[in-house]
Amino acid sequence: MSARLIVIGLGPGEIPYMTAQAIEALERADWFYGYGPYVDRVVAHDDPRRVVSDNREEGARAREALALAASGECVAMLSGGDPGVFAMAAAVCEQIERGPQAWRALTLEIVPGVSAMLAAAAACGAPLGHDFAAISLSDNLKPWSLIERRLLACAGAGLVMAFYNPISKARPWQLGVALERLHEVLAPETLVIFARAAGRPEEQITTTTLGQARAEQADMATLVIIGSEETREVTRPGQASLIYTPRFAPGFDPEPADSER
Amino acid sequence: MSARLIVIGLGPGEIPYMTAQAIEALERADWFYGYGPYVDRVVAHDDPRRVVSDNREEGARAREALALAASGECVAMLSGGDPGVFAMAAAVCEQIERGPQAWRALTLEIVPGVSAMLAAAAACGAPLGHDFAAISLSDNLKPWSLIERRLLACAGAGLVMAFYNPISKARPWQLGVALERLHEVLAPETLVIFARAAGRPEEQITTTTLGQARAEQADMATLVIIGSEETREVTRPGQASLIYTPRFAPGFDPEPADSER
Repeated sequence: MSARLIVIGLGPGEIPYMTAQAIEALERADWFYGYGPYVDRVVAHDDPRRVVSDNREEGARAREALALAASGECVAMLSGGDPGVFAMAAAVCEQIERGPQAWRALTLEIVPGVSAMLAAAAACGAPLGHDFAAISLSDNLKPWSLIERRLLACAGAGLVMAFYNPISKARPWQLGVALERLHEVLAPETLVIFARAAGRPEEQITTTTLGQARAEQADMATLVIIGSEETREVTRPGQASLIYTPRFAPGFDPEPADSER
Repeated sequence: MSARLIVIGLGPGEIPYMTAQAIEALERADWFYGYGPYVDRVVAHDDPRRVVSDNREEGARAREALALAASGECVAMLSGGDPGVFAMAAAVCEQIERGPQAWRALTLEIVPGVSAMLAAAAACGAPLGHDFAAISLSDNLKPWSLIERRLLACAGAGLVMAFYNPISKARPWQLGVALERLHEVLAPETLVIFARAAGRPEEQITTTTLGQARAEQADMATLVIIGSEETREVTRPGQASLIYTPRFAPGFDPEPADSER
């Protein structure tokens, strides 16, 4: 009996972003649970070991996978990006805490992956090169007032922010309101990145400013990065600009221009 | 002439954590720049293409690699974890902005990797399962007062925090002071994780509370995670506890215990 649940991060969308550890874990699994598009990436459509479910059914999916694992199977739970960032690892832990004692006895492996914000940042430079926060804009699981409080606290403290779940059909206004509130504490020239499908062939990176940014520039597949006051744009001839946040705060430049090198 | 600089994230320490994209990028490179221990992971000691430097020389290392790339070579800059998180990608962008125009013309590729906080979280459950911040505790490149302000802002807003660079021989007191300041805004039972060498054979995960945590439990190879009020411990018979932060805020449980499933 293997009695094992492996929560596997597939990375931001394509096989080349998977780690060797994730590929090895897939080979050990007897069953593959997950949101359909994630399972589709690595398991053939006619494979009888697929168990796909909708993206609002994390709790039920985790319980079913845990029950099967506890019966002695080796079950893979597939997650896009990193499973520990707004994804299935927490949903599985929640169900282990609430479920039968046998679920605490099984072996749980969590295989990390490249989270969407890291792929988005790599695609445009290094906007997360200094202190930053990762915040989900979905108010399905927390009150909108708490989200606003967090945005303002992080922006006010000079952190760059990566927004997960910025917008959806069921949540059409939240990103727009977030941008409006951020206007109150950040300058209009603050850099904003819309990274759509980062790490996938259809990747599209749009750089704009808080003064110009519109919620309609994002969709469900978009990761939004809000720069800090320090985030900078480096223009390049014939290439997209680089966006980065320096490693140092003003006055702490390790190599100021007027010093000897 | 390839005239290319590839900044490659090696992940948290072992080959199995590298992505296929990183492995492919290594195969294309003519030269390998980086901090010695990172270069050691993937390039033999007697390989003449190695150019190693100390971990305080990011600017000089980036300039040297950019100059070589601009001369037509394909140069790899190796980074532990993800290069965009407190690592070489920002250092390279800084030097491109300051350097000769030719550096803006070369091709810059950034290959993301599994950042230390993701490996640390995966090793103990899902402590980063809800909103969180990544903060460097090093005051080499920013004033300590700014670090304290950020810690208090994030803790006060209910974000979990991952501390990079928590302590070193040259910075012995910062983590202790950070823990003291956090006591002022977080309960003593707040969960704290010291993840040493996460993702490496010598990995060691220690879970404690803010009331019990001591700075001496960390060293340079440690990633420290400070839970929020919501972060929970699930005890397991014969196994380490799981530490996770629920996806939902209080009152927003999608499956409250008294509801029908």
